[in-house]
Amino acid sequence: MSRAAGTCFSLKKPTYATMKIHGKNNIAGALSAEGSQQIEAINPANGAALDGRFTLATEAEINRAAETAQEAFSGYRRKTAQQRAGFLRAIGEEILALGPALIERAMAETGLPQARLEGERGRTVGQLNKFADTLLEGSWVQARIDRAQPERTPLPRPDVRSMYIPLGPVAIFGASNFPLAFSVAGGDTASALAAGCPVIVKAHPSHPGTSELVAGAIAAAVEKTDMPPGVFSMIHGGVHESRMLVQHPALKAVGFTGSLKAGRALFDLAAARPEPIPVYAEMGSVNPVFILPDFLKTRGAEVAPGLCGSVMLGVGQFCTNPGLVITTDTPGLPGFLDALGRQIQTSPAGTMLNAGINAAYENGLAALATRPGVAVLAEGREATGQNQGKAALLRVAATHFLQDEQLQEEVFGPSTLVVAGENAEQLSRVIAALHGQLTATIYGTEQDFRDFPDIIDLLAQKAGRLLFGGFPTGVEVCDAMVHGGPYPATTDSRSTSVGTAAIFRFVRPVAFQNFPDRLLPEALQEENPAGILRMVDGVFLPPA
Amino acid sequence: MSRAAGTCFSLKKPTYATMKIHGKNNIAGALSAEGSQQIEAINPANGAALDGRFTLATEAEINRAAETAQEAFSGYRRKTAQQRAGFLRAIGEEILALGPALIERAMAETGLPQARLEGERGRTVGQLNKFADTLLEGSWVQARIDRAQPERTPLPRPDVRSMYIPLGPVAIFGASNFPLAFSVAGGDTASALAAGCPVIVKAHPSHPGTSELVAGAIAAAVEKTDMPPGVFSMIHGGVHESRMLVQHPALKAVGFTGSLKAGRALFDLAAARPEPIPVYAEMGSVNPVFILPDFLKTRGAEVAPGLCGSVMLGVGQFCTNPGLVITTDTPGLPGFLDALGRQIQTSPAGTMLNAGINAAYENGLAALATRPGVAVLAEGREATGQNQGKAALLRVAATHFLQDEQLQEEVFGPSTLVVAGENAEQLSRVIAALHGQLTATIYGTEQDFRDFPDIIDLLAQKAGRLLFGGFPTGVEVCDAMVHGGPYPATTDSRSTSVGTAAIFRFVRPVAFQNFPDRLLPEALQEENPAGILRMVDGVFLPPA
Repeated sequence: MSRAAGTCFSLKKPTYATMKIHGKNNIAGALSAEGSQQIEAINPANGAALDGRFTLATEAEINRAAETAQEAFSGYRRKTAQQRAGFLRAIGEEILALGPALIERAMAETGLPQARLEGERGRTVGQLNKFADTLLEGSWVQARIDRAQPERTPLPRPDVRSMYIPLGPVAIFGASNFPLAFSVAGGDTASALAAGCPVIVKAHPSHPGTSELVAGAIAAAVEKTDMPPGVFSMIHGGVHESRMLVQHPALKAVGFTGSLKAGRALFDLAAARPEPIPVYAEMGSVNPVFILPDFLKTRGAEVAPGLCGSVMLGVGQFCTNPGLVITTDTPGLPGFLDALGRQIQTSPAGTMLNAGINAAYENGLAALATRPGVAVLAEGREATGQNQGKAALLRVAATHFLQDEQLQEEVFGPSTLVVAGENAEQLSRVIAALHGQLTATIYGTEQDFRDFPDIIDLLAQKAGRLLFGGFPTGVEVCDAMVHGGPYPATTDSRSTSVGTAAIFRFVRPVAFQNFPDRLLPEALQEENPAGILRMVDGVFLPPA
Repeated sequence: MSRAAGTCFSLKKPTYATMKIHGKNNIAGALSAEGSQQIEAINPANGAALDGRFTLATEAEINRAAETAQEAFSGYRRKTAQQRAGFLRAIGEEILALGPALIERAMAETGLPQARLEGERGRTVGQLNKFADTLLEGSWVQARIDRAQPERTPLPRPDVRSMYIPLGPVAIFGASNFPLAFSVAGGDTASALAAGCPVIVKAHPSHPGTSELVAGAIAAAVEKTDMPPGVFSMIHGGVHESRMLVQHPALKAVGFTGSLKAGRALFDLAAARPEPIPVYAEMGSVNPVFILPDFLKTRGAEVAPGLCGSVMLGVGQFCTNPGLVITTDTPGLPGFLDALGRQIQTSPAGTMLNAGINAAYENGLAALATRPGVAVLAEGREATGQNQGKAALLRVAATHFLQDEQLQEEVFGPSTLVVAGENAEQLSRVIAALHGQLTATIYGTEQDFRDFPDIIDLLAQKAGRLLFGGFPTGVEVCDAMVHGGPYPATTDSRSTSVGTAAIFRFVRPVAFQNFPDRLLPEALQEENPAGILRMVDGVFLPPA
């Protein structure tokens, strides 16, 4: 059914108005609405309910999703790299085949503009294709081969060969702020499916219709490429349903993007299971931007326009939004603050993702403004519609910052707090006091790096990604990307949720000792039929 | 002081009788005994207290160990690969320099024989040297480079480069059963130090004197190679001290080898911290050995001598001890059981590591023998001394095994339980019911693998290492080894605690975006001065 829908719509290029939202859970490709509780999708721009009522999954439906995922795992993990790559590409094609309907529904549910969502769709399809490339290249299994040494004394060395295999079914919780790229078919789903893990997505209640459309596209791709149906399910639900999903014994890992509170709750739940499972929760971060004294003096004001743009991007609703600017109260600061304040003042308010996020932003900002030593330097243009977030620039001295951990809490929205230290020593103390971050950005001259020779090393202890200049918003999907970082930026700093290295979150190594070649996985066979880079007897050998 | 001791002793080739045991904690190279609680070392062969009284660490001493580790981290992580490799090699040299004294003390504390402990010392030094080689080779940092594409539209691609960096100070809990190779300077310590993490070891109370000697050797190596003193500490303690150590905010990971109960307790504690940290606990495993029907019929009896040797190795006190033999009640079973029973009957009892382990073995075996359907087929020779464990062979039908999870619990010692299924279908159900394991071993003919085409894939879901024939005891220290597996074999199946891939447990990736070459770590600089394999623009490039 989903298949037919996808194909049909791709020919007709339907608009959202012509596309019926059914509001059901998608369990292994079958639509299901056995429950009695429903939620609505709300347009944040006008508070109106959008069409469709979404039925929360029952325990039976969640169990069915988990059990079919478990069943599908057996077949799915044995698919070839080519088959899995074909599946990922087909998902991208089916998403594109949804046409303008997907963009229109996402606009209505999130208040995000068309161009942004079209860009995000491109990113979503792009990262599915990038994981397909990773599968076809094949080296990600990290094959290691230590050949037998029967003549070794006192004991012969056995033949030992290892590679990564998938963990099992993964529960994924999409983010509100990227309804496509970090949601139903987002990076977490793409990386888990690439690794060979079935996926069950809990749709974000802030964009359930968008989620339904994308789930239909994935189900269509499942059918088109002959994958086992249980390889993908999507359910609607709240806290209760999320808990059931994470506690189901068939689930072997969790991917999450959202708040610290929700991410930590899932982590705690997963750790308390009879069999604990890993949770990759990408949570809060204030993404400090450091402007060092010599740079501040000579070029500080240059940073203001781009920094303001980064603060305002997506109405400040980026995980990598620069919520903290750390600098010194030295020459150049007034000019920098003036320039940034002027930018902020002319920034228009924008519709936030939902009423709850808008209220949390206003409350968070109000709370921040009343903390000891905090001054509001500038505010953006007033809201002209419902649920609009207004820009804000605040300032505090480092002495206050060092005494007040609340100043490190993420205020999700278009504001930033400038922390001005008195000197280098205080700057070092601010760095030492920083919580874990997704990113840290540094502006410095050659003179600054002579004066602060340790700063890069120190910031590497605090963040998953360091930027030399530029702005932290915009996370390139590439092999080298690290979108992660020490707690509370994530619950597991050992990984990334963006880029192809995200595949390593959903695998574990397994070794084969003294196996005959024909019984080994292709990646470990002597003649390297998979044609991949392998470590053989301690030496990395590219394919012949 | 430690340095002088090491050097001096290496010249004199002291015996244990001439070496004074001080019983103190070693905090960043300084001996310290501020507490009032003491424990003794007991010789399990005669129950006698050995010389030395060991003072448990106080909270102040544990805090000092953690704080000096935190301080040392800054300097230690910046040491070059050559410097860290030199440190690891020096530890091995200092351990060898302890001479016979170390072996004698370890024999007295563990009841293990001289040849075994000399072999284990060789393994310990060998794995330190192997990690040194890994550091010098350098590719373990997994450098990934995606170069800038300034001309890309709609947005230019930034330059992004990532590599692994160390997590921070690591708490390590050694095992009772390998007083050298999985203890103070064992695999966990070697891999954490290699990764660039300071280490605090909690000495195992079953071999505190051996631990003290090895800690002195490490402290000597710290001084000799000019490492920051806080890079290594060792404390004595029990549950209370262990809890304090794992909860200290400076600690960023935990390595553990021991029981399920203790490992899970540490895991739970670490997960409940304000900042949760990873726990690599290697715990219980019964290491099933599968003998498939055609192999059983044609060659089953051949396996008996080697299998008995594996069951008896180290008086059954190996993590990889084959505690379960899974086969079918088909032709060949009587012959196999007879042969194995005869081997078991002639096996001598052996001194176990301590009175507690011996008592737990006897109780566990007695409990196992009374489970429904379990029959004792053979017993080994009677004990002739204190704390000796006697071999045992038991049998149960698969129908009982499938109904009784207690039959999967590890009985740590020289016994094995044969589970006989009726047919292939029952064998599959036994596999499905198996808990996570460190190893699974398969004996099968070509006919068997035609009849059970899925068995390797199914067992790969259950264990970290699969063996085609042979025996699971004996874990080769090599690049491809995986000593790990799904819970409850470990708390984190995504890693190994033996072999050079263990270094990945103590690192996290960090990305550098748009950095000038001179400010990048050597591993990421454009000209590849480190001369390592790197992934550049999606392609693995060996050093030029």
